Amino acid sequence: MPKQFHDQVLSADSLDQIFREARSYNGWLDKEVTDDQLHAIYELMKMGPTSANMQPARIVWVKSDEAKARLVDRVSDGNKDKVKAAPVVALVGYDIDFHEELPWLFPHTDAKSWFDGDEQGRKEGAFRNSSLQGAYLIIAARALGLDTGPMSGFDADAVEKEFFGDNPKHKVNFICAIGYGDKASIFDRSPRPEFDKFNRIA
Amino acid sequence: MPKQFHDQVLSADSLDQIFREARSYNGWLDKEVTDDQLHAIYELMKMGPTSANMQPARIVWVKSDEAKARLVDRVSDGNKDKVKAAPVVALVGYDIDFHEELPWLFPHTDAKSWFDGDEQGRKEGAFRNSSLQGAYLIIAARALGLDTGPMSGFDADAVEKEFFGDNPKHKVNFICAIGYGDKASIFDRSPRPEFDKFNRIA
Repeated sequence: MPKQFHDQVLSADSLDQIFREARSYNGWLDKEVTDDQLHAIYELMKMGPTSANMQPARIVWVKSDEAKARLVDRVSDGNKDKVKAAPVVALVGYDIDFHEELPWLFPHTDAKSWFDGDEQGRKEGAFRNSSLQGAYLIIAARALGLDTGPMSGFDADAVEKEFFGDNPKHKVNFICAIGYGDKASIFDRSPRPEFDKFNRIA
Repeated sequence: MPKQFHDQVLSADSLDQIFREARSYNGWLDKEVTDDQLHAIYELMKMGPTSANMQPARIVWVKSDEAKARLVDRVSDGNKDKVKAAPVVALVGYDIDFHEELPWLFPHTDAKSWFDGDEQGRKEGAFRNSSLQGAYLIIAARALGLDTGPMSGFDADAVEKEFFGDNPKHKVNFICAIGYGDKASIFDRSPRPEFDKFNRIA
């Protein structure tokens, strides 16, 4: 049986760390992120829920100087310095044919058959759920004492061709720098909406 | 300046609470979720990053018996009992015309102009970023000692017409039950992939 935590609230420091004080960084301290840390991020993020446990995210963690140079050439001008300075940049991609894995990912029913022949539905499901997984990645990295810098300014076709094997079923969703953020690289936090602006209780 | 938490790892209990032991529930204890708790979820989730701080999510928190009855009629058969029993169901929607709000949400540059006339780009950005926000909602609810049950089996057109004012620019992404999960309502956790299955360090 799962452990439950009903009405237990994380400590104020923990809420600060994963939400309230965490920021998206543009610059990075010169401090390595280890492969073990990348594995630890994935071990947490993979526990987050996806529809029918489809787990569509396919991630290339760009870490070597050689791979980073190939990525720099494929991001927008405003993101080149960020990519250069970041210890790691995660390319959060997804597999439109994720359903081929459902027989073992969702063994208690034939979920693969829900998606056979419905490429449009798979594209939507893979995009939604790999976005959820990208958010889990951000929160997991923060929970482990790292900072993130998500970016969407890049040439998707070129990134897919270079890093996802030019497979038409493998797409890139967004990319996310990971490291130890440099406080000097950020501005004041942008305003956040009051509840009543974008919410309604019915 | 923001507080930083470099190399500080959340406690094992906190990681269990938000990722490792948390589950998607199908059944719910008969225990209310207050409006204050819904506000507290939003106060956390709105701090999560979105591209250009676009904050495209528009949420209807379905809580009253009357609203829940209207929702039950618009979800798939397999989800009707889940919606009936859940204290709250959050309808995570998004506004395709989120860019109209960017002058105050992202005040340091004219980000609205990036999206003017590009409805296809806005649809993609709103879908991706409201999905991120939906994931923040799930993690925020768990961090506050609540459980969630995300669902995508519903009639989107009917939900939009009924709850989002039949405005063609307001779409629904997914819906998510919130409450105190009933342990008897879940099965064993579905398998999770090993790192090497869907990840590559380059």
